[in-house]
Amino acid sequence: MYLSQRRDPDRLLPSDPALRRTARELYDSVSGLPIISPHGHVPARLLAENRAFANAAELFVTHDHYVTRLLHAAGVDLGALGVGGIHFDPREAWRLLASNWQLFAGTASGYWLDEELTGVLGIELEVSAETADTIYDQVAERLASPAFLPRALFDQFGIEFLATTDDPLDELDQHDALRAAGFGAAGFGAGSAGGAPGGGPRGGAGGSAGGSAEFGAVAPTFRPDRYLDPDARGFAEGVATLLARTGASATFAGYLGALEQRRRYFIEHGAVSADHGVLEPFTVDLDAVEAERLFQAALAGTADAGERRVFRGHMLLQSARMSVDDGLVMTLHAGVLRNHSTATFNRFGPDTGHDIPVATTFTRGLRPLLEKYGLEPSLHLVLFTVDETTYSREIAPLAGFYPSVYIGAPWWFLDAPDAMTRFRAATTETAGFYRSSGFIDDTRAFLSIPARHDTARRVDAGFVARLVHEGRITRSAAETIVRDLVTTIPRAVFKL
Amino acid sequence: MYLSQRRDPDRLLPSDPALRRTARELYDSVSGLPIISPHGHVPARLLAENRAFANAAELFVTHDHYVTRLLHAAGVDLGALGVGGIHFDPREAWRLLASNWQLFAGTASGYWLDEELTGVLGIELEVSAETADTIYDQVAERLASPAFLPRALFDQFGIEFLATTDDPLDELDQHDALRAAGFGAAGFGAGSAGGAPGGGPRGGAGGSAGGSAEFGAVAPTFRPDRYLDPDARGFAEGVATLLARTGASATFAGYLGALEQRRRYFIEHGAVSADHGVLEPFTVDLDAVEAERLFQAALAGTADAGERRVFRGHMLLQSARMSVDDGLVMTLHAGVLRNHSTATFNRFGPDTGHDIPVATTFTRGLRPLLEKYGLEPSLHLVLFTVDETTYSREIAPLAGFYPSVYIGAPWWFLDAPDAMTRFRAATTETAGFYRSSGFIDDTRAFLSIPARHDTARRVDAGFVARLVHEGRITRSAAETIVRDLVTTIPRAVFKL
Amino acid sequence: MYLSQRRDPDRLLPSDPALRRTARELYDSVSGLPIISPHGHVPARLLAENRAFANAAELFVTHDHYVTRLLHAAGVDLGALGVGGIHFDPREAWRLLASNWQLFAGTASGYWLDEELTGVLGIELEVSAETADTIYDQVAERLASPAFLPRALFDQFGIEFLATTDDPLDELDQHDALRAAGFGAAGFGAGSAGGAPGGGPRGGAGGSAGGSAEFGAVAPTFRPDRYLDPDARGFAEGVATLLARTGASATFAGYLGALEQRRRYFIEHGAVSADHGVLEPFTVDLDAVEAERLFQAALAGTADAGERRVFRGHMLLQSARMSVDDGLVMTLHAGVLRNHSTATFNRFGPDTGHDIPVATTFTRGLRPLLEKYGLEPSLHLVLFTVDETTYSREIAPLAGFYPSVYIGAPWWFLDAPDAMTRFRAATTETAGFYRSSGFIDDTRAFLSIPARHDTARRVDAGFVARLVHEGRITRSAAETIVRDLVTTIPRAVFKL
Repeated sequence: MYLSQRRDPDRLLPSDPALRRTARELYDSVSGLPIISPHGHVPARLLAENRAFANAAELFVTHDHYVTRLLHAAGVDLGALGVGGIHFDPREAWRLLASNWQLFAGTASGYWLDEELTGVLGIELEVSAETADTIYDQVAERLASPAFLPRALFDQFGIEFLATTDDPLDELDQHDALRAAGFGAAGFGAGSAGGAPGGGPRGGAGGSAGGSAEFGAVAPTFRPDRYLDPDARGFAEGVATLLARTGASATFAGYLGALEQRRRYFIEHGAVSADHGVLEPFTVDLDAVEAERLFQAALAGTADAGERRVFRGHMLLQSARMSVDDGLVMTLHAGVLRNHSTATFNRFGPDTGHDIPVATTFTRGLRPLLEKYGLEPSLHLVLFTVDETTYSREIAPLAGFYPSVYIGAPWWFLDAPDAMTRFRAATTETAGFYRSSGFIDDTRAFLSIPARHDTARRVDAGFVARLVHEGRITRSAAETIVRDLVTTIPRAVFKL
Repeated sequence: MYLSQRRDPDRLLPSDPALRRTARELYDSVSGLPIISPHGHVPARLLAENRAFANAAELFVTHDHYVTRLLHAAGVDLGALGVGGIHFDPREAWRLLASNWQLFAGTASGYWLDEELTGVLGIELEVSAETADTIYDQVAERLASPAFLPRALFDQFGIEFLATTDDPLDELDQHDALRAAGFGAAGFGAGSAGGAPGGGPRGGAGGSAGGSAEFGAVAPTFRPDRYLDPDARGFAEGVATLLARTGASATFAGYLGALEQRRRYFIEHGAVSADHGVLEPFTVDLDAVEAERLFQAALAGTADAGERRVFRGHMLLQSARMSVDDGLVMTLHAGVLRNHSTATFNRFGPDTGHDIPVATTFTRGLRPLLEKYGLEPSLHLVLFTVDETTYSREIAPLAGFYPSVYIGAPWWFLDAPDAMTRFRAATTETAGFYRSSGFIDDTRAFLSIPARHDTARRVDAGFVARLVHEGRITRSAAETIVRDLVTTIPRAVFKL
Repeated sequence: MYLSQRRDPDRLLPSDPALRRTARELYDSVSGLPIISPHGHVPARLLAENRAFANAAELFVTHDHYVTRLLHAAGVDLGALGVGGIHFDPREAWRLLASNWQLFAGTASGYWLDEELTGVLGIELEVSAETADTIYDQVAERLASPAFLPRALFDQFGIEFLATTDDPLDELDQHDALRAAGFGAAGFGAGSAGGAPGGGPRGGAGGSAGGSAEFGAVAPTFRPDRYLDPDARGFAEGVATLLARTGASATFAGYLGALEQRRRYFIEHGAVSADHGVLEPFTVDLDAVEAERLFQAALAGTADAGERRVFRGHMLLQSARMSVDDGLVMTLHAGVLRNHSTATFNRFGPDTGHDIPVATTFTRGLRPLLEKYGLEPSLHLVLFTVDETTYSREIAPLAGFYPSVYIGAPWWFLDAPDAMTRFRAATTETAGFYRSSGFIDDTRAFLSIPARHDTARRVDAGFVARLVHEGRITRSAAETIVRDLVTTIPRAVFKL
């Protein structure tokens, strides 16, 4: 990880001096370990094309809905930030961020931005309206250098494994290109991914690979939501294309077969997981006749809201069945109402900052799935929530019994230092550390990857250090745990 | 703010010595700033009449449902405390509190009572059954002095702005009287409201005003619940009176016009906000025909429970529309089931300690309102909750996108040091500090106002200090934040 | 309490040195006080028979569903652990725990196991695959000694009062046997239960009783769930037996009379409370005709789901009425969906680790009960939850008003240090310390009793110490509070 001169080396660690000392030692023991990122949204194209980032606005503003949302709340027009592909002035967009920097004080986004600017780009100026232009130019200068091309950064970040998120019909040619360009596969061919102990920068672009691959691995992820949910835009058209592309018949069995075929295609291209984003973690088992009926009604657009919900719930259960069969890890991201502001959606499209969480429950909704597949050794089901109440109440108890269930890392709004600490406190006493997923960065913002993983390592070191000082675990257990959290645990959960 | 000899000057600050030092410095930088109280329940009459408080029971027991409820839970009859206007012995009521003092250990009420007794009244004895009579007499002695008349205290507390809560049909003559007596208007005419840096007492009654007004401002607040909710007692009669008083016709349009007219009246008398207390934050948009139908059915008493709910939900949306039009800040206090104990309500009336929170959700219920008005620059909608789960899950995400939405300060049961700390931790990482409302005391207990604001300043100083020590914000950002939290933020949110 | 050489004497106390010092002093002042355990699941037979524990597996693995669940999640077959009465190798079962020891790091179970091994049994080796056999043999050696017979441990633990949990038709002969063997009754006849200040071991088996009883008191608890809930297995048969055994007629009145008769029987045998485990805290009042109708339908198996729910809800209200009449404290454990995994239930039976909490609300569901009986001085209703959100939102507000309502100690998954701290923080500011129940261990694992109570004493000392250091309570108030929490409070709540 990167340490800026300007940044406190003890940042995010507990204030109490004795605790901080222990936490720092634990953190130091893992800060240089490679990054395993088994779920995220960086496009494969970024690395395949390896073009220089355009400017500070593209890097830090336009594509980061954490940033644009808070500027929007302050009255900034999303269009001025480049959201929705509208023509905009990137320098002006950056100025809008810089002159509103105080809005991000104390936020996760503010912390990451600081880390990216100082840690990755080596900018030492504090961001403000006054320094906006200077920093914009400094960033531009950095980005023009080969050392800041995506692949060089990928290598420098010490990424051992990076998963993208992909449409089931994607041909994954970008992933093929990456393989051809020396990126490893899920088996961790890249010798370069070992990471130097101590966590210093790994040097310039490319690095000297010791193994069969020059770079760490990049793998696709199967994300089938829009083919499973009758309420998704373009569901019927999507399914029709899916059936056509796979040569499947327009029956429920044909549809299942088509999905299975695409999953196999993904697996052949290195995928280790299938990702499901749902409003509610609701599952239901249906017999073949009813499934067929609902499938046809959903395609015809004649299914009512209740039937669409049941179909969706059945497809979540069917997806678990496919994971049992083909081994893809199933990640479930539940509880976000997407596109809350229709006016904004219409003007700027999805992922523009108004996806809002809702109260979520897992115990009853997942029961049909778990009754049927919860004891299957080949199923790995990782549960992500943005409703913190489910950590101690449902997710930890489920993961503390079902061998298939893992506690997903703090996600989205909860991917932040205090929330991470609450997450550990809420889950560990019931389920320990070994039922959690390891850290998942879930990010579109490539430059934020090291900052996010570093944050998790710091927070976990602080949490574990407290347990040591409270006499609850030994120091040597603590050392094992912080290491396992970034190595053996994510590898086991994601079958790497 | 007041510092008693008996009170720890570092109270409520974090224990860790380094953290405490920073927190204390941050606190000291704002402890003497004037109080902005944009939502509360102190009656205007108290200041207009400026009569001496009667005794310790009236000050600390009878009217404070935080106090009477806990005594009631311990088996004390509410009547003996003077609740419900029943004849009672005030000295005996005070003795009941004093002899049950340990019940309040660790509670917010206990802390405030201590602050009021020592900080405001300068009582140095510890409260107990043994000291009850002595303290009662000491309090009586203080209250007999002109320095403890309501206006003198108002001045001494350094109140820059105080909002009352008023019925829409109130003629606001008490507010007129206050204006005549030298109280300022929302524009902050009072030179005396500046507050001396350092936070010492401002001296005796009256003070020497340097500006156009002798005292800080007092403004009414429009609280229309009983005219909007068909389930409220006396709804039909209330609406009839409203229509009669405003000369409006008994149509939905007439009714809306009547409300608008009374809002204008309030605005002319200095009101800056309209306050809405609802069981659930549920909104619905209706066309004119359906609205008319439900209005007539509600008035006639023929609307069923579902229709009454829809009407209520539509009136919340209409109230937002009115705020867009006339600029009144809309505060929404949601999620409390009032008068849980019917027997107690029948004997002692409302606000007698058995209003109990319920699970609350905002994301879906507010959507119709936000779809329609959420992007309007003139709307300020401040969300208050007593369901902590909504902080990180819904309120912070909503306020982090919609320019109209602000995160209300911890309210009611959550207006307490630990709960405030949880509030900051739950909201800041998503929405920062600048989407929060600033502190709101929401109190009927006039003497508790400085203690409540002081508590918020201490807790926020502690929270911000931690972020400094964790390397998440700079010291200079921290200084700006703690100052903004009690100055620019409440002024901007409440359009002062 | 026991202090192992290997265990940190400051364990579970806050890290900050000044806070820790105060917390330690507060803890030391109560660590040696006797244990009051008014709700738990240790069978009376254990003490009545006073047989030696068989081995480490029986003690620490097979019967502890906290332990077996986490091993199961790690892929261990429950049968290999002896769950469900299946033939198994106890040494091998112990090895399975020992070799998976790291899974329990940071969990409440892991902490208790450590405390039991080191504190009670004096094992100084760290548990691991390597030490498994040695420790197994060391445990066996200890268990063979008279000092580790159940009664000797009961005495050594300093248990003043222990409640079991019993079927309403139990003849309580084991309790009779205990009385005959020198165990006290609820009135605390046992002089031996005083506990030596300082908390050292109380010596060998038996002890020298100074009062009328040689040992502390053991009392039964009336647990009627399966006779009240039409959805419980064997409900109709159970009720038929109940009616036959009490000579009651098969009418609703006869049924109520039968329950009342059995409650009287329990009271005569020393019971102080009736315990109710429900999925939801839902109550409803019915007139006699409707109650009779639902009763007959429930018995006949013709009641639909809604009717069964209403009947169950009415019986909860009737149980409160019985408590008003006969004085049995009513404990309510709500919000756990039992036997989530049907396959596991069918193979291994209930209580095998897959009871999973659900979102729970009390405010509305308990209202009919509280409207009718909430102000009755003779009702003590203790509310337990595994949904933490209810602490600040519902339970503390209810207990802060109704004299009948008490806040149950953190239960089940929440019976753990961090969760306990959150519990105090969530409830104290609203309801203080004196509306809480005192600690309840709720355990089947006899050897874990001292560890559990010690944990609560440590956590409470840490919490109270923080309030002292934040200037919120005085040091002398703190000393009173920590003592009351383990003495006067549980005695008052459970009418001991």
